Amino acid sequence: MRACRREPVPYTPIWLMRQAGRYMAEYRAVRAGHTMLELCKSPDLVAEVTTFARKRIGADAAILFADLLLVVEPLGLKLTFEAGEGPVIDPPVRGGRAVDALREVQAAELSYVYDAVRATRAALEDGIPLIGFAGAPFTVASYLVEGGPSKEHAKTKAMMFGAPDVWDALMRKIAAISAAYLRVQVEAGASAVQLFDSWAGALTPADYEASVMPHSARVLAAAGELGVPRIHFGVGTGSLLGLMGEAGADVVGVDWRTPLEQAVPLVGDHVVQGNLDPTLVFAPTEVMTARAAEVIEAGRAARGHIFNLGHGVIPTTDPDQLARLTEFVQSY
Amino acid sequence: MRACRREPVPYTPIWLMRQAGRYMAEYRAVRAGHTMLELCKSPDLVAEVTTFARKRIGADAAILFADLLLVVEPLGLKLTFEAGEGPVIDPPVRGGRAVDALREVQAAELSYVYDAVRATRAALEDGIPLIGFAGAPFTVASYLVEGGPSKEHAKTKAMMFGAPDVWDALMRKIAAISAAYLRVQVEAGASAVQLFDSWAGALTPADYEASVMPHSARVLAAAGELGVPRIHFGVGTGSLLGLMGEAGADVVGVDWRTPLEQAVPLVGDHVVQGNLDPTLVFAPTEVMTARAAEVIEAGRAARGHIFNLGHGVIPTTDPDQLARLTEFVQSY
Repeated sequence: MRACRREPVPYTPIWLMRQAGRYMAEYRAVRAGHTMLELCKSPDLVAEVTTFARKRIGADAAILFADLLLVVEPLGLKLTFEAGEGPVIDPPVRGGRAVDALREVQAAELSYVYDAVRATRAALEDGIPLIGFAGAPFTVASYLVEGGPSKEHAKTKAMMFGAPDVWDALMRKIAAISAAYLRVQVEAGASAVQLFDSWAGALTPADYEASVMPHSARVLAAAGELGVPRIHFGVGTGSLLGLMGEAGADVVGVDWRTPLEQAVPLVGDHVVQGNLDPTLVFAPTEVMTARAAEVIEAGRAARGHIFNLGHGVIPTTDPDQLARLTEFVQSY
Repeated sequence: MRACRREPVPYTPIWLMRQAGRYMAEYRAVRAGHTMLELCKSPDLVAEVTTFARKRIGADAAILFADLLLVVEPLGLKLTFEAGEGPVIDPPVRGGRAVDALREVQAAELSYVYDAVRATRAALEDGIPLIGFAGAPFTVASYLVEGGPSKEHAKTKAMMFGAPDVWDALMRKIAAISAAYLRVQVEAGASAVQLFDSWAGALTPADYEASVMPHSARVLAAAGELGVPRIHFGVGTGSLLGLMGEAGADVVGVDWRTPLEQAVPLVGDHVVQGNLDPTLVFAPTEVMTARAAEVIEAGRAARGHIFNLGHGVIPTTDPDQLARLTEFVQSY
């Protein structure tokens, strides 16, 4: 939390995106008996996987176990997770009428999120911050318009380019639910929030600035009113880092493709988060830690630095290797 | 060709990556009766799809229809294309012994490539250059090590980080076959070549420079000795553009994520190629052409500019829309 606020810290703090996830046998055991949605809607299980993972790797913060598509159902859409295929949204949101039909936020439907955060906060050691999170409007919009994950976001961008009014209405509705979703988390005890724009990197800076950033900015501003630090992260965003800070973030997450030496000047006055190549955990430990040291050193040029991988933990990762990484960073 | 050599041109010339491909009904008709490998090994069919696509959209150059994995079989490995799953290489190349077992180049095995280029050159209108191509060592290495396409290249990078001698030997063997493959194409009549490093964008600049660039540079140098212009392209390479030029390219291809305004200074003295967002073909025509005009204008700051999409043509693209794009660029 001090690093988020640009205050002095005894060492560069570390947490890892997707630190509670499939790479961990204990997570897989909990997950085995439940669908993804069941798990996310079971406060005790969320608390268990979130706090266990934090402790197992020794991270300085926990990140709420959840899915960025939890906002889909409150919008009135059907969400399922097909084995091996990722999320499916049926029917996809393909035009003005479908956008109009999306429901306005019903905060009561997010009560399980409130309960999950409360349970997690209660289970978590004192002094360990809990990071809440939400998907950013562009990323959620792409899921809605494509009906699932997408490589090219072709239908999404076709709407953005060809039907700007429909696009604007869609993005406003998503921003409203994302803001409500973050508010619930903060009210229940989240100390900071991360806005994940996983797919913003598919946009040119001009399109991001004109058609996406204002909506993300609305979500970040709403979180800011609650007084918590806001982390803003996307993948492949080397050209967008300045804008992602300007959108209203306290901390800008950087993927591993852009070295912190290049990222820090782009991020300007913001704190940076990142950005060890997540495949470096498969390298010999001394190679991994040497690279981690380079990341820490490069981060010293920033106004503040939170160590993380440059993307989520890869499912074949060895938890022991992550524990070694955490220990190295904390004792560097 | 004049644009490649930084000579004056009457307009910004245009060709499109993957311009002969699935989005075109005539291509699908030819492809229907054959496996991918059969098609690539049939000189008359290669000539047909290559020249037809060039003419259909009115591009200023043809790009040889081929696959960047055609070098796999001469290395002594088995390559199959599974429907819907992409290429499969079995067994994958997973260690020093497997690398040692890769065969040295047998130029005779590439005779069908020679025949395909000859047939295409003969079928192509006079004055239309034929661009040859090859996969760059990192991209081919990832296919070999992973056994197929990969999102994270985890095993590939594990070898690069953890077994640098094995990695070096693998990259040298691939560079040798890629160079031989380009040589055959140039000897058969290709006027220029493009080295495709589709996945270089997954690397940090430091890793690219230390472990990949020297091998790509060897391929580009070999092509340079043949006197043809060399285009060097990868996806998500915003942090690598300077290095990709320094590797020995005449033309640096830029994906759409990095605006040419940002890319031109990075590319320095090289010609740039690109970089319209390939999803803009799904926008209304006047939106697409307005953006194309911005790309052309931004390209004027470079030492030379070849118009292209920022990645390959998306399979759902309307060929008529590409023909309109070509006409617009040529008459701008």
